[in-house]
Amino acid sequence: MKEYKKSKLNRVKRGQNRATYDVEKINTILDAGFLCYVGYIYEGKPITIPMAYTRRDNKIYIHGSTANRMLLSILESEETSITVMHLDGLVLARSGLHHSVNYRSVTLFGSLNKIEKDEEKTAILKWIVNQMMPNHWDSLRPMYQKELDRTLVVEFTIETASAKIRDTGVADEPEDYALPIWAGIVPIKQVAGYPISDKGKPEEMGIPQHVLDYYEQNK
Amino acid sequence: MKEYKKSKLNRVKRGQNRATYDVEKINTILDAGFLCYVGYIYEGKPITIPMAYTRRDNKIYIHGSTANRMLLSILESEETSITVMHLDGLVLARSGLHHSVNYRSVTLFGSLNKIEKDEEKTAILKWIVNQMMPNHWDSLRPMYQKELDRTLVVEFTIETASAKIRDTGVADEPEDYALPIWAGIVPIKQVAGYPISDKGKPEEMGIPQHVLDYYEQNK
Repeated sequence: MKEYKKSKLNRVKRGQNRATYDVEKINTILDAGFLCYVGYIYEGKPITIPMAYTRRDNKIYIHGSTANRMLLSILESEETSITVMHLDGLVLARSGLHHSVNYRSVTLFGSLNKIEKDEEKTAILKWIVNQMMPNHWDSLRPMYQKELDRTLVVEFTIETASAKIRDTGVADEPEDYALPIWAGIVPIKQVAGYPISDKGKPEEMGIPQHVLDYYEQNK
Repeated sequence: MKEYKKSKLNRVKRGQNRATYDVEKINTILDAGFLCYVGYIYEGKPITIPMAYTRRDNKIYIHGSTANRMLLSILESEETSITVMHLDGLVLARSGLHHSVNYRSVTLFGSLNKIEKDEEKTAILKWIVNQMMPNHWDSLRPMYQKELDRTLVVEFTIETASAKIRDTGVADEPEDYALPIWAGIVPIKQVAGYPISDKGKPEEMGIPQHVLDYYEQNK
């Protein structure tokens, strides 16, 4: 089992029984989503920006306009962290205190690097699109050079990380189990609705198989 | 229409056509969820922590253990922001550049205050539980004093805020509409599964009506 080294930065203080530093487990959580929350400091305040991402090995890639103040700021300061969370359930306990959620979350710390080469940028943008919708990129119109020129692609190398996972049932005070109070779990998940074709040619063409596959796997 | 005043902090720079400062619209987005992303600065790095919240007027309430390093840190420094985002759809365009998501997001800036009085703390914890599961609190075992004593309740007064909403179809380059490329929207939503009763008394009792109502409204 390969683990991220624990440091002052990534060591989980609250709920240590839910914590893991296991690289495989962290990668599995990262690969289950495509939206991350990127932290940056603006005017002394920590601001969180939701962004699309993709992961390859120990790298996370995000992108935006070359005028994106957040991306430029974190590239310069190298001060950021990335959080990903999947909500899996509401934990309804017998007491207020033991109410909780089931979830998988990851927090990543690392260093930043601007991707300069066009071929690398293109390859990464393909990964980002395909992380949102598998096998999708090759069906698209190729990027124009001017589009590539105004896109900033940032590589985040994970240096340390932690995950928290809660995936069990209700955990109440021992004496509360005798009370005539209902408790249980409400599972929560994110699902896809049936794809809606854009007007014009897409309506005539029909929905591509890879998009239908996504719907079937996520409905 | 009441609006938050635009300042350097909350003025949306990218995608201004999606931005709103309207108090009602911002409150509607806040009331549609119960999980927020709270930013704080630790060792010079911005870290984002997912937390349960509730809203009353221009106040957001979050809570945690009295030993929660993040809550203690933001109370002391007053440097934080809160982000809430709901993902509503994948926007699959004809080109990579115009891929996007439909969403409703809010970023809040404000001041912080620790709630000291037991009655106030209890009232707020009721709101937090009921924001996650409407009408739920009154079915629970009342809080013990010792539970209240080790719970930190923090009031965040919204001073300035912005929202971004994308809720339209695909927006491609004009010339791309002639291409034989499929484009469209995949709606995304968060849904509830059927409630799972905890072992013991809850199994005999049956699922309470308010939990069944939640399931029916969110399935």
